[in-house]
Amino acid sequence: MKKILILGAGRSATTLIKYLNSEANNEGFSITVADLDFDLAQAKTKGLDFCTPIRLNALNEAERLPHLVEHDLIISMLPAIYHKDIVESAIAHKKSVITPSYLTDEIKQMHQQAIKKDVLVLNELGLDPGIDHMSAMKIIHDIKAAGGTIEAFESFCGGVLAPETEKDNPWKYKFTWNPRNVVLAGSGGAVKFYQEGTYKYIPYQKVFRRTELIEIDKYGKYEGYANRDSLKYREIYQLQESKTLYRGTLRRKGYCKAWDMFVQLGLTDDSYLMEHVSEMTHRDFLNAFLAYNTTDSVELKFMQYLGLNQDDDDLLEKVRSLDLFEKIQVGLSHDASPAQILQHILAKKWTLNPEDKDLCIMWHKIIYQKDGKRFARYATMALEGENNIDTAMSKTVGLPLGIAARLILNGVLTTKGVLLPIHSNVYEPILEELKANGIFFTETEEELIA
Amino acid sequence: MKKILILGAGRSATTLIKYLNSEANNEGFSITVADLDFDLAQAKTKGLDFCTPIRLNALNEAERLPHLVEHDLIISMLPAIYHKDIVESAIAHKKSVITPSYLTDEIKQMHQQAIKKDVLVLNELGLDPGIDHMSAMKIIHDIKAAGGTIEAFESFCGGVLAPETEKDNPWKYKFTWNPRNVVLAGSGGAVKFYQEGTYKYIPYQKVFRRTELIEIDKYGKYEGYANRDSLKYREIYQLQESKTLYRGTLRRKGYCKAWDMFVQLGLTDDSYLMEHVSEMTHRDFLNAFLAYNTTDSVELKFMQYLGLNQDDDDLLEKVRSLDLFEKIQVGLSHDASPAQILQHILAKKWTLNPEDKDLCIMWHKIIYQKDGKRFARYATMALEGENNIDTAMSKTVGLPLGIAARLILNGVLTTKGVLLPIHSNVYEPILEELKANGIFFTETEEELIA
Repeated sequence: MKKILILGAGRSATTLIKYLNSEANNEGFSITVADLDFDLAQAKTKGLDFCTPIRLNALNEAERLPHLVEHDLIISMLPAIYHKDIVESAIAHKKSVITPSYLTDEIKQMHQQAIKKDVLVLNELGLDPGIDHMSAMKIIHDIKAAGGTIEAFESFCGGVLAPETEKDNPWKYKFTWNPRNVVLAGSGGAVKFYQEGTYKYIPYQKVFRRTELIEIDKYGKYEGYANRDSLKYREIYQLQESKTLYRGTLRRKGYCKAWDMFVQLGLTDDSYLMEHVSEMTHRDFLNAFLAYNTTDSVELKFMQYLGLNQDDDDLLEKVRSLDLFEKIQVGLSHDASPAQILQHILAKKWTLNPEDKDLCIMWHKIIYQKDGKRFARYATMALEGENNIDTAMSKTVGLPLGIAARLILNGVLTTKGVLLPIHSNVYEPILEELKANGIFFTETEEELIA
Repeated sequence: MKKILILGAGRSATTLIKYLNSEANNEGFSITVADLDFDLAQAKTKGLDFCTPIRLNALNEAERLPHLVEHDLIISMLPAIYHKDIVESAIAHKKSVITPSYLTDEIKQMHQQAIKKDVLVLNELGLDPGIDHMSAMKIIHDIKAAGGTIEAFESFCGGVLAPETEKDNPWKYKFTWNPRNVVLAGSGGAVKFYQEGTYKYIPYQKVFRRTELIEIDKYGKYEGYANRDSLKYREIYQLQESKTLYRGTLRRKGYCKAWDMFVQLGLTDDSYLMEHVSEMTHRDFLNAFLAYNTTDSVELKFMQYLGLNQDDDDLLEKVRSLDLFEKIQVGLSHDASPAQILQHILAKKWTLNPEDKDLCIMWHKIIYQKDGKRFARYATMALEGENNIDTAMSKTVGLPLGIAARLILNGVLTTKGVLLPIHSNVYEPILEELKANGIFFTETEEELIA
């Protein structure tokens, strides 16, 4: 019997739990699903014969340790900030760990220790980061192996709505992943990238106005805004030779221009708490960022401040769809930052209904030279969710983790140390099984003629 | 003999040193001017009979202590971050301290200790903070004493150029105070104020577009942008009843709209270091914030990005006057943030020449009710400098400190503890002597008829 401990039963764990349960009979798995909220752990394992829910405060070492030592592999779905302690004690007790979170410097420094203790700590094993690394590295390795020299690398990913679910939603967007990250997207430092051999920088107040239009086969047009730091992928992807490095996030066309209104107003600021939040209406919230004026309405001040005209109705319609002009109570009982208040208001309209389906899309473009010719290779992935629980996001995050867990426990994946899924022995078997589960990339290539 | 130790001989110490030297004979002062740079201390005390320059690293306690215990009063002109240790050891050795810096929470907590040791620690004793507090409190106390109820308080201050020096300078501005503060003005958190009973917030990307026009008698029109936190003055000034609280900074009309171009581009960001700064030209610097484009010039991209038209020549003229489009080396040998690079480029043009004269202006507007009527009281101060050394800034910062030093040493100012100059026993004698030195406010009042 191989025993797996999953820490955290939240929305990203749904598919992971189901996948491991479905493999459990064949593989001899026994799965413990631990959450601080026992009811959640129970709900997520209901009817799954090989899963046992438990209540566990995974942040409490004394509580965690007895469970940790009893299992063969730990899958942590907890927020990234908690991983240091968990990974440290897992390594000490010779347990491998996998997580969908970004690898931190602190955990990176445990590499030699992990090798010494003969365990694998595999990070960034979800969608983005995760499938982006694996799919990109496969193409990069293929092109290099065939003698190509990479000139440009661009990659976009987005969690959006399936087209059938977009109707009657002016933003064509709902939260399908951490809402806080959506509200704070682009903030916290300038965006950096590398284009045609030149370093380029975009300040927060311009991020949503400098977008690229990307066409996704069968799904139409999306716009991509730049992610914070594309430069760190130069080393990870071994792209020192590439003169362009750009990573971005996809939203449906029209989203970014509208979101920029919120940025310009200051609604996404997370650096201070507003006053009198408990008495605040949506309209008060908006008005706090507009100039004082005894005669003009909030609507008029809003339009004037942002330089909108009467025929910018697509923008106003998006604002109205969130009831932002209405005298509806925000509904927070404590003081909060503008970003927290905005998130709370957005969640009223942007939470998936049972009949909603999400869509995960990923798009790579790699330009390379070979034998004196230039080529552009495109790779596209698109996956729709089934409903508001079995989302595409849950699948694209959970399946790579589940597959990696299986490959580690059945002895296919034998590498040790603290790693990302950028090595072919890691990504090849995972990508192969993702394909069997409907997650795959369609590649096209064209020769570029000057 | 009363012995004064001045820590720091930089540009803000010029007038302070001269003033104390001129009073030394009458008052029996002996003044030690200490700086890490002995040449600077020597230059600043040249020909001043009662001053002795010394080389001192005031941050080194072992080095500082023998000098501290030998003097009767410490005046610290060092950056605010160093004051905690200095004030702590001064209190321990029963020495009073005065500084022009903002009072920190750490120093505020030394209040009881200062009383116990029978010393005065007087902070915020320059221009802004300093003369602003004293002049505002005098008016506030006067109005309240006469039975008035304050409805609105607005205050603006600026260090700019005297009109005769503004010619041939499209910005009508040069650095007359800490250049770094000028470049970072408005950044680091949202601007907050209170207007007609409503809290208002302005994000950084709108600060320089939401200005007020202020007319200063004899000097013409200036524009004021909002300071970071006007709300903290509610308690300091005892303005709990006031429905409007607004503090701002003055620049010549047209400055803010042009500066906003730098904000929008991201040139004032201080949160990251740019790459390859040592090889960078002014033009490269600007281009790093503009989109990549093989056919358009930097000038054209700049105009398009900021939405400028050909007839926005006043804005373009300001940019050109800084040689920002030129292939001139930036001249920094180390990596630097955009804000640091911009400051370095600005300093090439915005450093006072010997014949330049600066101008310090301050403007208060207080609306109050009395006996069923409403009044607006205005108070204006304007002081021109003599040259690039004896600046109005040096006078308005140095004189309040020098006067306070004299009043403490000759026994007029006997209060103890950690204080701001907001009490009448402190500000009355200082304002009176400032007036004798040409620094005074002209007050006007009008009744407001609905």
